[in-house]
Amino acid sequence: MSDEIEQKHQRKMARLKEVVDARIDQAQEERGVLIALKGNGKGKSSSAFGTMARALGHRQKCGVVQFIKGRIETGEQLFFGQHPGVDFHVMGTGFTWETQNRAQDIEAAEKAWAIADRMLQDPSYQLLVFDEITYLFKYKYLDVNRVVASLQKRPPHMNVIITGRTLAREIAEIADTISVVQDEKHAFRAGVKAQPGIEW
Amino acid sequence: MSDEIEQKHQRKMARLKEVVDARIDQAQEERGVLIALKGNGKGKSSSAFGTMARALGHRQKCGVVQFIKGRIETGEQLFFGQHPGVDFHVMGTGFTWETQNRAQDIEAAEKAWAIADRMLQDPSYQLLVFDEITYLFKYKYLDVNRVVASLQKRPPHMNVIITGRTLAREIAEIADTISVVQDEKHAFRAGVKAQPGIEW
Repeated sequence: MSDEIEQKHQRKMARLKEVVDARIDQAQEERGVLIALKGNGKGKSSSAFGTMARALGHRQKCGVVQFIKGRIETGEQLFFGQHPGVDFHVMGTGFTWETQNRAQDIEAAEKAWAIADRMLQDPSYQLLVFDEITYLFKYKYLDVNRVVASLQKRPPHMNVIITGRTLAREIAEIADTISVVQDEKHAFRAGVKAQPGIEW
Repeated sequence: MSDEIEQKHQRKMARLKEVVDARIDQAQEERGVLIALKGNGKGKSSSAFGTMARALGHRQKCGVVQFIKGRIETGEQLFFGQHPGVDFHVMGTGFTWETQNRAQDIEAAEKAWAIADRMLQDPSYQLLVFDEITYLFKYKYLDVNRVVASLQKRPPHMNVIITGRTLAREIAEIADTISVVQDEKHAFRAGVKAQPGIEW
């Protein structure tokens, strides 16, 4: 590679560094954030759990409530459920189309929310993950306004991640970061079977 | 709640179950998949690491190559770097706008790819994560066709996750699953400082 290309690259990257550094200088407020992951693509819950791994790397205390229980014990539960830095809770009932029992689902939702709500009031947690909670708003198993009120009263340092296909407008309004995970292609549609370590 | 509502819910959910079960029956091919996470939103790398936590929960052997090294040791490296089930490698150089040295970056990219390529030939791995590899294609630090050839020759059971803002067309063509993570809102733009456990 010629010196000219090398120098051109260096000048371009120096300019980029100025832009990046200026942006970093502008963001100086220190507080916990509410992150929402929504959309029909694969990777929302796994993103929340990856962020939790990151937090655990920095020795932050974490809490999880999974608002949907599948038929099989998940890899994330097997993995994080044993970790001393994580309080891991799984709701007592499964997908509505599996249980087909609305009253039972509402009762389980209330119990799961009671645990989540207690965590939101406990300043020892640095990160909470409410996995698939948005599903409960969609089916009206849980009142979104109660959840919003508790989120707003949480300790200022606390980070919270919420996942689910559809995000309630009330949550979107108070979220600091929203990422939309869109399905562009999925192995399942090409006939590949769901597998441990990927889907659960 | 009246019985009528309860029965209506039950009928609706029974129909949904039929649809879900039929879809599951149609996907029976068992093999490893290539998953790509792209887009400008937050959550791509964390999604890959969350999937890895899931795989580790099922006692699968995992390998990671992070193709971008930041200035600070990341939470994911601190967390997974100690785990006996993970081989964790971080490339020897950082963002191009930090290093501003093209020749040095290319050399580091080659070294990182050599590690990744060896992992792709080793059937003891069940899941590999190539974090931010697409960045190397964008800057032409690594030939995408070499990477495609190695991905196609990998053991059939092996799952691979690739992350990065922009995905090369050649990788998109052979990917089984592609999720696009889009930035709808970001705390950084509202002035909130990047923090350990969330950004790194």
